[in-house]
Amino acid sequence: MKKKIKKVNAAILIIGNEILSGRTQDKNIGFISNWLNINCGISVNEARIIPDHERTIVSNIKLLSKKFNYVFTTGGIGPTHDDITAKSISKAFKVKYEYHKEAFAILEKYYGKKKFNDGRKKMAKMPGGAKLIYNPSSAAPGFKIKNVFSLPGVPSILNSMIENCKQYLVKGSKIHSKTLNLFTVESNISRPLALIQSKYKKFVDIGSYPFFRLGKIGVAIVTRSTSNAKLKNVNRDLLKLVKLKKIKILKI
Amino acid sequence: MKKKIKKVNAAILIIGNEILSGRTQDKNIGFISNWLNINCGISVNEARIIPDHERTIVSNIKLLSKKFNYVFTTGGIGPTHDDITAKSISKAFKVKYEYHKEAFAILEKYYGKKKFNDGRKKMAKMPGGAKLIYNPSSAAPGFKIKNVFSLPGVPSILNSMIENCKQYLVKGSKIHSKTLNLFTVESNISRPLALIQSKYKKFVDIGSYPFFRLGKIGVAIVTRSTSNAKLKNVNRDLLKLVKLKKIKILKI
Repeated sequence: MKKKIKKVNAAILIIGNEILSGRTQDKNIGFISNWLNINCGISVNEARIIPDHERTIVSNIKLLSKKFNYVFTTGGIGPTHDDITAKSISKAFKVKYEYHKEAFAILEKYYGKKKFNDGRKKMAKMPGGAKLIYNPSSAAPGFKIKNVFSLPGVPSILNSMIENCKQYLVKGSKIHSKTLNLFTVESNISRPLALIQSKYKKFVDIGSYPFFRLGKIGVAIVTRSTSNAKLKNVNRDLLKLVKLKKIKILKI
Repeated sequence: MKKKIKKVNAAILIIGNEILSGRTQDKNIGFISNWLNINCGISVNEARIIPDHERTIVSNIKLLSKKFNYVFTTGGIGPTHDDITAKSISKAFKVKYEYHKEAFAILEKYYGKKKFNDGRKKMAKMPGGAKLIYNPSSAAPGFKIKNVFSLPGVPSILNSMIENCKQYLVKGSKIHSKTLNLFTVESNISRPLALIQSKYKKFVDIGSYPFFRLGKIGVAIVTRSTSNAKLKNVNRDLLKLVKLKKIKILKI
């Protein structure tokens, strides 16, 4: 019996001037993408980095939430004036921007009534109807509304929360992947590689990425597929090519 | 006499499955953004990461080249089957995808006639009418067509080429920036910070970014403006706030 392939995709929306200006290096795209891929069989098909600008956030949320199965946002859910993600998502979905009772209680307990000031209260304001994504590092929860997941921008905090998104996600078919590191140059194999790709069109993605290691140039051939059998076939063809061209393989 | 402020913006389009899948960490967005900011007074207003997929590249080039003064693409200009950036940009601008004479000559000389195979020749195919961006590292040039600049994905090669884009760029007004690192938490200053931001609305952008250093929590306050005078005023207000709240400053 043939197993039905289920493709589920997502987009990542990084919100923050500091990433766009180059001041801060984004680490969240790779982390989220890897996590979704390995744990949920979900492929990230697009990522965008946009400024802390309401109209821009609203239009991106509207567009991406229609186009992809899931959207993950990072950044802009803290206590300061430039944290406008929750408010903007409320506008995008035309729901109220209001205190989330449970989030309010969590934060009040964490800070204590006396130290629970306006900035901290702001972190309990979310789109009406949002579900919480709990935060084991610093209390302030993320949230999920419709197919959009909002997480904080600080990587260590985001990383600690990501598992709490799983309960809301419908998984896709497992995506298998194999990497072959070859001591050759791309142009030496580009033609036979194109032939192999066209043979397995639609079933296997073949990527070719130059690398520099131990003072030598190489090419990493990355194959990805939801079918493990097809992946094995492609890699058999690749190894034939490697043998024919007398290319050395780098074992890692 | 008042100097006229000239705002020039750009978008970055990262093309490559390997960045989206999380296999490779992007380093080009921060580098290009920083370089444009410091050297050309150009702000990057959006960055996107998309797969090696023709229709997706075409639609993004069409949209971003209309919306922003400049677009910088990285990736997909090598010799293999998944390198489809030049072909896709040709489609987006409805021009021929053809050998660029000078690029062909550069590559032929670099590899020698005998070793100048099909894969290598492919790197000389560009949108008709494109201008070259010379490559001092590995010969294969990037190109510029209309307001779109296409650079390779390998960071060290891209970095070596970026200066060669300058001749084609109209510069914007210099963007001044100042960072104040404070040993406090965001919620302690969120309200007065919002007041200062609203006082300098439109003239100065104030960003607030938590950091962890030497086991302590802090907040970096980043101010950015095309007016150095306004930037000084904002920072005077910020220092008053710091004094009032008895916050320690981290000197770097």
